[in-house]
Amino acid sequence: MKAVERWSIFELALPGPAEGNPFVEVTLSAQFMYRNRVLYVDGFYDGEGRYRVRFMPDTPGEWRYVTQSNCPTLDGQKGTFLCTDAMPGNHGPVRVHNTYHFAYEDGTPYFPVGTTCYAWIHQGDALEEQTLETLQRSPFNKLRMCVFPKHYTYNENEPVYYPFERNATGGWDFTRFNPAFFHHIEQRIGQLCALGIEADLILFHPYDRWGFADMGAEADDRYLRYVVARLAAYRNVWWSLANEYDLMESKKMADWDRFFRIIQTCDPYGHPRSVHNCRQFYDHAKPWVTHCSVQHSDPGRVREWRELYGKPVVVDECQYEGNIEEHWGNITAQELVHRFWEGTVGGGYVGHGETYRHPEDILWWSKGGVLHGQSPARIAFLRRILEEGPTGGLDPLIHTWRGKAAGKAGEYYLFYFGVHQPSEYTFDLPEGGRYQAEIIDTWGMTITQLEGAFGGRFKLQLPGRPYHAVRFRRV
Amino acid sequence: MKAVERWSIFELALPGPAEGNPFVEVTLSAQFMYRNRVLYVDGFYDGEGRYRVRFMPDTPGEWRYVTQSNCPTLDGQKGTFLCTDAMPGNHGPVRVHNTYHFAYEDGTPYFPVGTTCYAWIHQGDALEEQTLETLQRSPFNKLRMCVFPKHYTYNENEPVYYPFERNATGGWDFTRFNPAFFHHIEQRIGQLCALGIEADLILFHPYDRWGFADMGAEADDRYLRYVVARLAAYRNVWWSLANEYDLMESKKMADWDRFFRIIQTCDPYGHPRSVHNCRQFYDHAKPWVTHCSVQHSDPGRVREWRELYGKPVVVDECQYEGNIEEHWGNITAQELVHRFWEGTVGGGYVGHGETYRHPEDILWWSKGGVLHGQSPARIAFLRRILEEGPTGGLDPLIHTWRGKAAGKAGEYYLFYFGVHQPSEYTFDLPEGGRYQAEIIDTWGMTITQLEGAFGGRFKLQLPGRPYHAVRFRRV
Repeated sequence: MKAVERWSIFELALPGPAEGNPFVEVTLSAQFMYRNRVLYVDGFYDGEGRYRVRFMPDTPGEWRYVTQSNCPTLDGQKGTFLCTDAMPGNHGPVRVHNTYHFAYEDGTPYFPVGTTCYAWIHQGDALEEQTLETLQRSPFNKLRMCVFPKHYTYNENEPVYYPFERNATGGWDFTRFNPAFFHHIEQRIGQLCALGIEADLILFHPYDRWGFADMGAEADDRYLRYVVARLAAYRNVWWSLANEYDLMESKKMADWDRFFRIIQTCDPYGHPRSVHNCRQFYDHAKPWVTHCSVQHSDPGRVREWRELYGKPVVVDECQYEGNIEEHWGNITAQELVHRFWEGTVGGGYVGHGETYRHPEDILWWSKGGVLHGQSPARIAFLRRILEEGPTGGLDPLIHTWRGKAAGKAGEYYLFYFGVHQPSEYTFDLPEGGRYQAEIIDTWGMTITQLEGAFGGRFKLQLPGRPYHAVRFRRV
Repeated sequence: MKAVERWSIFELALPGPAEGNPFVEVTLSAQFMYRNRVLYVDGFYDGEGRYRVRFMPDTPGEWRYVTQSNCPTLDGQKGTFLCTDAMPGNHGPVRVHNTYHFAYEDGTPYFPVGTTCYAWIHQGDALEEQTLETLQRSPFNKLRMCVFPKHYTYNENEPVYYPFERNATGGWDFTRFNPAFFHHIEQRIGQLCALGIEADLILFHPYDRWGFADMGAEADDRYLRYVVARLAAYRNVWWSLANEYDLMESKKMADWDRFFRIIQTCDPYGHPRSVHNCRQFYDHAKPWVTHCSVQHSDPGRVREWRELYGKPVVVDECQYEGNIEEHWGNITAQELVHRFWEGTVGGGYVGHGETYRHPEDILWWSKGGVLHGQSPARIAFLRRILEEGPTGGLDPLIHTWRGKAAGKAGEYYLFYFGVHQPSEYTFDLPEGGRYQAEIIDTWGMTITQLEGAFGGRFKLQLPGRPYHAVRFRRV
């Protein structure tokens, strides 16, 4: 019996008709069964008479399947396979955990530390491989990336692959997908998976000169179903319905709601679902949103959004380290690191991006390549602190005019002072517990443990310099 | 005939009864007349049988006066005096000018660059004289100061003078003012006037262990009338009804409204009137408020408050440079200077304070003394820029996601980039005009003029470092 690692891909390949337009004329799906449990999975046409059904088994043991199709040669195909235990490093897909946080399906904590390379898969192999090498050495475990190619400032190049076939008059035939395009993105998603990086797939975006931003509802929906059928079996996939959805004038709020429901209905695994805003948040309280993907320059407000939506808050864009003239792409590394910490002590997660001018317009935020900035090292330092913290994540515990701290009540407190530089500070931790204290220089990346243990109300001498944190861990 | 300089003090001293309680039993006022114009001025009892009426003439020429009193020896006293032209440096009292700005009564622009020494007049002569010396070498032209002594962290000392006499049981007799107290504050206000510094007098405040924060309505109102009678003739007086009025639980909103109306009714000269908040702004739209005195940590919102209230906005407290443990008193000099610039390009004014720990608790913000910080030099630099700008002040002209600038349309534009560090930037100034461009390092205090003149849409290379501004002045 064929063996497939848990949370990896079982793929059923079937030959079938190549005539006509199989993308729209042939239906294919399968039921995957483990004991009495049944999952419904859509298949897809992969060109040249090849049909596939991809499935990510989540339970070790024997699985059965049977196909359904309007094409007799594809219908009623049955089989079994064995799902084996996950190998080290494979923790399954990411789930919302502890209301405001995330964990892999095996329970391992996942603290999103994301970056953005919107159009990296449209740059050709040399640059794309360099991007993967850079990511491997980086602290980032989530990558925001567009499915469609991108047209925008600093992004004028044509992509290598297009998602659709051309029609007879040189336009796009939105009913015929280009398998080569999808083979390519699948390779990249798989490589990210091997690096332990979640692929936060941006399904629509407004930066377009080809017409993919305005295909009409029928083509939009067909595209979403096709993408889900092809990509949902990758355990590291997240669905971001759009970047700056509110700049896409051709789509209304009802379209976004419908897109969410299509994804929610078709994806058998329930990958994380959200949508990224420009000026106005989508209503993240809607039931099909799993977490808040936010663009906002003030991650100091994370706590407020947690309370508003009752879901994890990921500030995917809070402006980028760089020196371009656009406001969103020219904050200092120090300011970006500060915003990461502000979001962290608010009980949320913040994302990175880098936009330094480049003679060939290779800006990390869009094309990838190499990193030039000073923030990634500090973000790696913060990631280490998150990973040393409570497995359930940091919740905002103290938020007064005097200061802010996140952690886990009675166990762990992480204070952050930002532009404030107290040379002494009175802490007030629960009576009874004793806590080890460490002074953290968030920019200098040092952790200095203080002598003794502390509890109740006590005063500590602090460095009197900005961008410091203090960590208390129960002894 | 006695001669008095314009906007200086004419004082009429009259002997009268010392028996009983003249503070409450004897009424005294005067009419001051210039041609057909009449100003109504309250007099006051100054102890030891001395009565005074103080008047600030605003028009050169011959003035007449006549007193009214319920005491025959004080009633019907008449006389004349000659008001002479103002001497150099005497520009008269400050008025609201150009809706959102200020000017002295002679038309000279006044750009408030304030600081705070709440309790400086309660520290004894040695420290008070040192404070005056420091102020003389500082960029500050407005000083927030309390009338009443202050009880608060770092402020435990008893004052030298109390505003009231003791009663027989050791409490305060709120019906009997202490002339020595007022002679002292008058001396200090006069000294500030000589230094060109506006005395922003805080009439009530909650930091109190003596009972002055909760005297009851009758005593409050009597106190206000007495203060106005004594101090309104000083041309550099501003009325700040309270510091953190919303922390004074014994007073209701109706009390604050009444206090404003008393000041407005009794002050013959219409000195600036406002009130400073802790958590919640007083409604500065009320007609008796001349300008908004704001405590808020984000002067980036000045533009919004200008629009809301239609009056000048002075962010008197945006947190202070220092290193004490309280959040409001430990921001970096760089952050404070940044907030000054943010408020400036929003079309408002920002105030300074300094709270570095001191072995004897002599913190500038409360007691005065000397300045230790790095912000005053940069604030002096900003004051110079304000004084080199349009005489009517800077109004917010450009406010987009790309950047912010204030100035005077078609003549002057001051862009400020804050934590943003563009290495190039596309400006869009009105077609037709040509502007000289200067790059300003707000922290390094340098101004670098660029070659050439610019207009319309054009791109400049910028330093690619934070806290820079660009000034355009029409050629």
